[in-house]
Amino acid sequence: MTKAAVMGAGSFGTAFAKVLCDAGTETVIWARRGAVAESINERHVNPDYLSEVVLPDGLRATDDHREALAGAGVVVLAVPSQTLRTNLAEWAGVIGPQATLLSLAKGVESGTLMRMSQVIGEVAGADANRIAVLSGPNLAKEIAQGQPTATVIACPDSARAIALQRACATGYFRPYTNTDVIGCEIGGAAKNVIALCCGMAVGIGLGENTLAAIITRGLAEMTRLGVALGANAKTLSGLAGVGDLVATCSSPLSRNRTFGERLGAGESLESAQAAANGQVAEGVKSCSSVRALAQSYGVEMPLTDAVHRVCHEGLTPQEALAQLLKRDMKPE
Amino acid sequence: MTKAAVMGAGSFGTAFAKVLCDAGTETVIWARRGAVAESINERHVNPDYLSEVVLPDGLRATDDHREALAGAGVVVLAVPSQTLRTNLAEWAGVIGPQATLLSLAKGVESGTLMRMSQVIGEVAGADANRIAVLSGPNLAKEIAQGQPTATVIACPDSARAIALQRACATGYFRPYTNTDVIGCEIGGAAKNVIALCCGMAVGIGLGENTLAAIITRGLAEMTRLGVALGANAKTLSGLAGVGDLVATCSSPLSRNRTFGERLGAGESLESAQAAANGQVAEGVKSCSSVRALAQSYGVEMPLTDAVHRVCHEGLTPQEALAQLLKRDMKPE
Repeated sequence: MTKAAVMGAGSFGTAFAKVLCDAGTETVIWARRGAVAESINERHVNPDYLSEVVLPDGLRATDDHREALAGAGVVVLAVPSQTLRTNLAEWAGVIGPQATLLSLAKGVESGTLMRMSQVIGEVAGADANRIAVLSGPNLAKEIAQGQPTATVIACPDSARAIALQRACATGYFRPYTNTDVIGCEIGGAAKNVIALCCGMAVGIGLGENTLAAIITRGLAEMTRLGVALGANAKTLSGLAGVGDLVATCSSPLSRNRTFGERLGAGESLESAQAAANGQVAEGVKSCSSVRALAQSYGVEMPLTDAVHRVCHEGLTPQEALAQLLKRDMKPE
Repeated sequence: MTKAAVMGAGSFGTAFAKVLCDAGTETVIWARRGAVAESINERHVNPDYLSEVVLPDGLRATDDHREALAGAGVVVLAVPSQTLRTNLAEWAGVIGPQATLLSLAKGVESGTLMRMSQVIGEVAGADANRIAVLSGPNLAKEIAQGQPTATVIACPDSARAIALQRACATGYFRPYTNTDVIGCEIGGAAKNVIALCCGMAVGIGLGENTLAAIITRGLAEMTRLGVALGANAKTLSGLAGVGDLVATCSSPLSRNRTFGERLGAGESLESAQAAANGQVAEGVKSCSSVRALAQSYGVEMPLTDAVHRVCHEGLTPQEALAQLLKRDMKPE
């Protein structure tokens, strides 16, 4: 049976490591801090993330990436999108040449405008057939609680997708397979930006009609971008598109939405960041890279553009909304 | 300029009559009860629906359908789907032969399994080019409050769709045109069933991941049905599909969702009905007609089927959920 190494002990890495164990897969989780690894091994608790969840006895942890990666047939990349390149460069030398690389990271790399699977292919020197992505409406906290959850595992090599599906399917976690890596990645990257936009609308005091319109038009613009890059529009209508978008935009647990709410209520970026334990929401960074990617393909993304201008060019959320409402009315 | 007659003074008819007035269209609203018409004329308040909203001075009301329909170039049908046939049969003789018939009703007629535009065509003897439907994420209360709202107006005759768009476009109400009547109608009918299903999940205690999965798989099954009937899948990915579905499934204001929550929490259909002022939610009725329509086209709709079995065949919501989670895992 395949051993899985989960590289990163943030909330999603921790929740997914639990899923793998619950599915009967031998799993090791790598944590940057030795104290976290020790706590997981000795007390079955990650003190930094999801600390209320008791992790499976069988989950082993280490702060030594060589130990984690030794003999791993599945390498789960669970570090933030903007640090994936640096982390993977350290690890690439000890990853087995046949291992499947499964990305949990969502985003478009700043500067290079590469999707995560492209970064992985470049840094690990891996063929696209070995690279898979997981994406869907997957709030980590709910997965860790065993709430029924569906997700998509996409890989150009269907056999690997099915092997991954088997490695993580449990009574509460249902992965569907797909071959459309691009569609899943664009959905995952763009939805954080739309969630920020929804948050802003909520912060301004707008209701369900407006939120639903933002979600729908957000879906339309992320689908345009995906299709321009070679994705199948159906993927964006599925769990990794609509599903993830709805969960991220609707949930008060979503960091991007909460961050947007603060901006909509008139707080500055700095103040919203301070309230989020110093962390800037992923969408604040990815709005610029998603926008740049869209521009390079000549794709219009008015909501993403508005979020970028609020986050980085000093437009107020109210001004952005007024401009969006003034756009010409067209056929849908 | 065209005069509009809004036939029905329920919450959506009332809100839409306000929109038409705000857009500068001469508008008469027909109310079944004379006291309602009198209150709207004299105090600019509909005492039965949205009674906290002050209606425009220009909105006239009458309980005489002949008076309402006289000279109306646009006839807005704002009565419930299951009574539309009977009502329209009374009115058809006085509707002008060139008038546009705009349906706000959502549902599939029990027994005949006809969409509302089909009922209208049959009863009014009107050509399909004269029949339009309006559908989107449009909670009446929020429209009446002037919250920014987007919607779709679909008509096979694009010129009529554009004329309707102009008749109701305001700063807060943005109609997009479309020619796909079938897609809009299927979205509008099927979403109430999925909202009931979401409510049941919430009532059972499930979270955002499950809700998003239900919404996404619900979208997939309503799209399958729409496409089988001749709709464009894109319509279901738009405001009348995803948009309306998200608003109806997410909002605590949604009657179908609230009704489902009571069922999920273990209440009987009768008890949930009693709590809803004796009214059964639209989805309770339409689950059976949507399911029958799907069966007649050989389309699988597992969520709609589950809702039907809970509402009409004695399955518990928990049993329905367990069965859905046991389905084979497939490619998405």
